[in-house]
Amino acid sequence: MPELRKDPIIGRWVIISTERGKRPSDFEKTPKKKESKLCPFCPGNESMTPPEIKALRPDGSKPDTPGWTLRIISNKYPALKIEGDLNREGHGMFDKMNGVGAHEVIIETSDHNRDLVNLSEAEIVGVIEAYRFRYKDLKKDPRFHYIMIFKNKGEAAGASLEHAHSQLIATPIVPKRVSEELEGAKRYYDYKERCVFCDIIRQELSDKERVVVENEAFIALEPFAPRFPFETWILPKKHYASFEKTPEEDDLKLASLLKETLMRLSRSLNEPPYNYIIHVSPVDSEYDKEYHWHFEIIPKLTKVAGFEWGTGFYINPTSPEEATRYLREVDVKNTAPEQQAELVH
Amino acid sequence: MPELRKDPIIGRWVIISTERGKRPSDFEKTPKKKESKLCPFCPGNESMTPPEIKALRPDGSKPDTPGWTLRIISNKYPALKIEGDLNREGHGMFDKMNGVGAHEVIIETSDHNRDLVNLSEAEIVGVIEAYRFRYKDLKKDPRFHYIMIFKNKGEAAGASLEHAHSQLIATPIVPKRVSEELEGAKRYYDYKERCVFCDIIRQELSDKERVVVENEAFIALEPFAPRFPFETWILPKKHYASFEKTPEEDDLKLASLLKETLMRLSRSLNEPPYNYIIHVSPVDSEYDKEYHWHFEIIPKLTKVAGFEWGTGFYINPTSPEEATRYLREVDVKNTAPEQQAELVH
Repeated sequence: MPELRKDPIIGRWVIISTERGKRPSDFEKTPKKKESKLCPFCPGNESMTPPEIKALRPDGSKPDTPGWTLRIISNKYPALKIEGDLNREGHGMFDKMNGVGAHEVIIETSDHNRDLVNLSEAEIVGVIEAYRFRYKDLKKDPRFHYIMIFKNKGEAAGASLEHAHSQLIATPIVPKRVSEELEGAKRYYDYKERCVFCDIIRQELSDKERVVVENEAFIALEPFAPRFPFETWILPKKHYASFEKTPEEDDLKLASLLKETLMRLSRSLNEPPYNYIIHVSPVDSEYDKEYHWHFEIIPKLTKVAGFEWGTGFYINPTSPEEATRYLREVDVKNTAPEQQAELVH
Repeated sequence: MPELRKDPIIGRWVIISTERGKRPSDFEKTPKKKESKLCPFCPGNESMTPPEIKALRPDGSKPDTPGWTLRIISNKYPALKIEGDLNREGHGMFDKMNGVGAHEVIIETSDHNRDLVNLSEAEIVGVIEAYRFRYKDLKKDPRFHYIMIFKNKGEAAGASLEHAHSQLIATPIVPKRVSEELEGAKRYYDYKERCVFCDIIRQELSDKERVVVENEAFIALEPFAPRFPFETWILPKKHYASFEKTPEEDDLKLASLLKETLMRLSRSLNEPPYNYIIHVSPVDSEYDKEYHWHFEIIPKLTKVAGFEWGTGFYINPTSPEEATRYLREVDVKNTAPEQQAELVH
């Protein structure tokens, strides 16, 4: 059973996922050559994954058989386990609890050779709907306080399978950085009676220096104090604390902006590995006025990891204004090589 | 001029180091093949670095010429600049200040082919003395609130040169994670009237499950809630808030424990890239009773970077108890291959 453990100094919870238990020899120094193994996320290999929670099956085929265009499953190697109660326990000055939670995978397309950025806007709307469905469903489980959806793209960004997918982790605790954002947003609201994210959007629209792209409902921008080069946020222009509260009629606008932002990053930076994380208000939130959901997209470009992990002190070699200029200027109108390839086959 | 910028939501300062300004094409996807370039840290190449601040020269040779065994210089590409005042400035809701600070390099040995772990205990004492000298000297500059010494070993850990070296950054702000530790330690002290780190040492010595190695003055342990596999801390057993307050007569004991800890990590994990960061109390500290300086050593073994950066939520696949067993069991008595190599040439 995985364990949640609390650091006694700063109070951060970590997951010790003992069943993934890694021995020293499991940490490889140089990445293995790609083996042409069967992909468990490809149609025809449905039996290699846990049974599907839901799938988009335009052809009305049976569960766990081919025919789907998007598929939601439990993670075969979950960091947290869905069964059991939240037993809290102390040992001297140390605190821990059972690693209860949900860990799911959203397979974004049946096509092994396409990534999210290459899907049509309508297909990306399907991914957004899948996210909303999982948020709404898992919010009913009283054991979970936070639902986090994220995407690792590329081996350097932590993806262990290359077939396009997002992940979801539901936890009995609120992740540390989200707590800090909630506290910061609340402090700002208490002082100004305005949402800090709404104020950021207003100032960025007036400054015009860090806005990458926008439409009626969403904005993509480089934050004023980014930790990483080309770190990019996407926010709804209207104030919604959680992803699933944004109305469905805006889904196509989000799909369109997400696709264009990912394409601009991909073209500017030569298809970089990246992570995105959707920051939302906790389940049963008291932060409806103060918090404002958003995507944080982090291209994996630099390696100065341990130092920055260890100190929380980031040195960013590219100013957000400069990153914005590159992202704005890149040509996304002409057909991309990967799309040309698609047209061919 | 580099800039310090403050995130308006959570209040974290970042360095935007514009003079290192990276264009998209500067971020390489695959690391370059090692070029056999001249190493600026090797004897004979002293003119390739800024003039030395100090060096150990057992042969009494002139500054910036060969003969040294340890050399302290300013970083040629500093993240912060030593000249100038701390001008704070606002722009709408955003805050920034001049990137004033010190950025130095401690070249730990003149031998390009040895790392810290291969130095003799007496040579490591020289490195410790160099650290103390810089802490004491830079504490006199009233612009600096924090002095951070760290080491990046290996390209994957962010080292741009392979010749063994540590770095020092002095900043006008306290890094975020250190602030959190200070606050946590203060909260604990206010409640218990004891140092939380002293209590951790007491409990670990009694539990015996996570102590890697110890001597009269220092202890190396795996923390109860580690973020990373094989994360290892070294603490003085007696309570000292800052590195330079530990008495000089303990230097040899620290050198001995640091060498043995690094050797155990190196042997268990096949010479992994790693970072260490020395956590100390801020300059002009009010945390003398509450804070307890320590090394945090983080081998770079996993890649799940962006997600964990983005959330502060860590999934660790190796329990600290298991890591401790591996580190204790590994043989460090027999001569290491790299030391055999040294004996040969």
